Amino acid sequence: MDIIAIDDISTLDAIELFRDAEWFDTQKNALNGKVLCNLFYEPSTRTSASFYSAMSKQGGSVIPIDSVSYSSVTKGEDLEDTIRTVATYADIIVLRHPEVGSAKIAAEVSDVPVINAGDGNGEHPTQTLLDAYTIWKHYATPQDDSYRVFDALHITLMGDLKNGRTVHSLVKFLDRFPVYFHFVCPKEYMLPKDITDAMIGDWNHTEDLADHAEHTDVLYMTRVQKERGSDFEYGLTKENVELFKDDMIVMHPLPRNDELPKWFDDDPRAKYFEQMANGLVIRQSLLRTILVGK
Amino acid sequence: MDIIAIDDISTLDAIELFRDAEWFDTQKNALNGKVLCNLFYEPSTRTSASFYSAMSKQGGSVIPIDSVSYSSVTKGEDLEDTIRTVATYADIIVLRHPEVGSAKIAAEVSDVPVINAGDGNGEHPTQTLLDAYTIWKHYATPQDDSYRVFDALHITLMGDLKNGRTVHSLVKFLDRFPVYFHFVCPKEYMLPKDITDAMIGDWNHTEDLADHAEHTDVLYMTRVQKERGSDFEYGLTKENVELFKDDMIVMHPLPRNDELPKWFDDDPRAKYFEQMANGLVIRQSLLRTILVGK
Amino acid sequence: MDIIAIDDISTLDAIELFRDAEWFDTQKNALNGKVLCNLFYEPSTRTSASFYSAMSKQGGSVIPIDSVSYSSVTKGEDLEDTIRTVATYADIIVLRHPEVGSAKIAAEVSDVPVINAGDGNGEHPTQTLLDAYTIWKHYATPQDDSYRVFDALHITLMGDLKNGRTVHSLVKFLDRFPVYFHFVCPKEYMLPKDITDAMIGDWNHTEDLADHAEHTDVLYMTRVQKERGSDFEYGLTKENVELFKDDMIVMHPLPRNDELPKWFDDDPRAKYFEQMANGLVIRQSLLRTILVGK
Repeated sequence: MDIIAIDDISTLDAIELFRDAEWFDTQKNALNGKVLCNLFYEPSTRTSASFYSAMSKQGGSVIPIDSVSYSSVTKGEDLEDTIRTVATYADIIVLRHPEVGSAKIAAEVSDVPVINAGDGNGEHPTQTLLDAYTIWKHYATPQDDSYRVFDALHITLMGDLKNGRTVHSLVKFLDRFPVYFHFVCPKEYMLPKDITDAMIGDWNHTEDLADHAEHTDVLYMTRVQKERGSDFEYGLTKENVELFKDDMIVMHPLPRNDELPKWFDDDPRAKYFEQMANGLVIRQSLLRTILVGK
Repeated sequence: MDIIAIDDISTLDAIELFRDAEWFDTQKNALNGKVLCNLFYEPSTRTSASFYSAMSKQGGSVIPIDSVSYSSVTKGEDLEDTIRTVATYADIIVLRHPEVGSAKIAAEVSDVPVINAGDGNGEHPTQTLLDAYTIWKHYATPQDDSYRVFDALHITLMGDLKNGRTVHSLVKFLDRFPVYFHFVCPKEYMLPKDITDAMIGDWNHTEDLADHAEHTDVLYMTRVQKERGSDFEYGLTKENVELFKDDMIVMHPLPRNDELPKWFDDDPRAKYFEQMANGLVIRQSLLRTILVGK
Repeated sequence: MDIIAIDDISTLDAIELFRDAEWFDTQKNALNGKVLCNLFYEPSTRTSASFYSAMSKQGGSVIPIDSVSYSSVTKGEDLEDTIRTVATYADIIVLRHPEVGSAKIAAEVSDVPVINAGDGNGEHPTQTLLDAYTIWKHYATPQDDSYRVFDALHITLMGDLKNGRTVHSLVKFLDRFPVYFHFVCPKEYMLPKDITDAMIGDWNHTEDLADHAEHTDVLYMTRVQKERGSDFEYGLTKENVELFKDDMIVMHPLPRNDELPKWFDDDPRAKYFEQMANGLVIRQSLLRTILVGK
């Protein structure tokens, strides 16, 4: 079972993961003797540490390979051979690679499951799972049908929507449910047309968060992707916050720049640190499901 | 319970740690499922490996983050956000950071305990604990009152006392007890005045170790801190050694330069390798105390 | 018990390791509480990951020190002090170092066993063990006397035999048995004379693999050691392969360059990926033997 794109995870599987995570008990020894390889061709402290911890807390081990590019590659080895090598050592591979499509290539040659932890501007499905889980967890109630938790939510995405891999996958996933999307950004940073063309649900675009601040249930912000060439100014203002509903939530994949001011951190609607903690829980649940079943 | 400065550890707690370490038995599974994050903004093989081992030997796991500066920071994240992130993954954080005060900032935002493993020219309290423990262990006898082991010892510190973080904290700690301090160094490398001003006990300063070699119980040497701008010549000589008492001990936090010659390594008074081994034991004891109680 | 050179392993011990590995069962907790230090002064993803996994799969822990050269060494520490330090933290040290003889020096000062994982152009004995094990495993039959599995095999080594550390040790080891060696390379890349002078068995040299393709039982290829100054063209051709026996095997320590074409990967005689997997098994067996006996 490889997890390369968010489309590899059915809605049923996702909701089951969310529910499992809910009654997830730490099983200190569930993954004893299991080995995960964190194969990172570009650094990502947050993601690698999250998988590291998810494995460790269940008794598994992690081989951290951050220096691939500095070793085998300098001897001329290609991705396929590296993956086949690592697959002989590890029970599961978590791959971060700067090129779109690399995780798919890896999954094809690997004898063990591959989890895509980001392939350039491509996908990062476990980020999407933890994002969706954070929304689900906030809005789920004991009375709810788990499959209808997302229904009719107003999801506002603000920031660099053009280059944000995180946002693309999240939109794809949430579009499986009847939600309302509001995209807030300058025109030139709008989602790529192939993504909006493929959408089933309702969406609109504006340049001002104020247009949707009052009915937003989830505000998902992203930072300016300076390293991918983006450059514009925007951010959460006190005026925006005054318009927000009491039980809405503000999310951000972190790290942040100035768009998400620190004065908001203590607001109960600030969910971005809990969002990270949810990532750990979801990855624990996912690893256990893949490696030992339930 | 954060360990930011040596003053965070009471004399009672310290002695209890020393005694615990004495009857410390390896409990292979005491820290199963517990995760420590080694968050090192500057490299320190010795310290990170010591915490790594202290955790591993008791069944815990370690997330080694040596590359923070090369990932999140390049995306503009600050220390607070990094700490809050890491605190969602780990049960305890060991922080090494080039800036004085950083560990204190970290402890303020972290939901989990923070151990300062060196903040620039600031503190490095577990180094002080292992140094003090090495002295305590050597001079403790079954008959002793544990709290009086240090009493009346002649402690001679030699080297770059101005820039040596290790020395500053050790002096602060040992000054809680009635010991005699002898500082050996060129005038311009003497301890900062605010440290000697705050001392309760006796101390004197000389430029020649020969002045105190005969009555020294503990000689604590440090290397020239070239990377902090120090540059002078000194070292242990055969003439010094001839004056030493039989049961005195020579310590050094390592790594060393030429000041501590290799011909002395096989002398029974050379305690610097045992000193490192004591560091592992003290850290095991400390981690277990913080993470699971006793 | 240090493993510095292939000559540190007797033929009896080697065969016993091979047989143990055969009926090796994963013992998830055999190495609980044991700590291995991967002390790598130059990167080697493949080898370090293999030891990492071998330790982890049996419940042990690994301290990965890849950055020694960037920390202690910059403070002027030498190999001896580093080893003595690491030996206080770890139960066993795996050392990779660019200088010939470094592993021997390390073993002399270390209180814990040292395994040489490559010392420059010197030895890399566990690579030799896994290579030999791969041949042994392929040709052993239940009827065989284990000690005679290698007898009368035609071993063809092709590539840069002058600079290939792997090849030197393998030749030394296999020369303990009555095998036929065929060396295929340009004259200037032939094995050093001191190695061939010390050989007991039969050998010959040719520049063309075709001369021996038909009767070769094991073809062991190496890549051009560009980083050690070698530069010539050679490689496996379809014409060679047509001459091969059905049950011969092709080995390569990997990583490869163009000498070993990918079209051969799916041939049942391609053993180089299984060879890596064998490395994991042999190292598990070796670590358990050294650390806890059998």
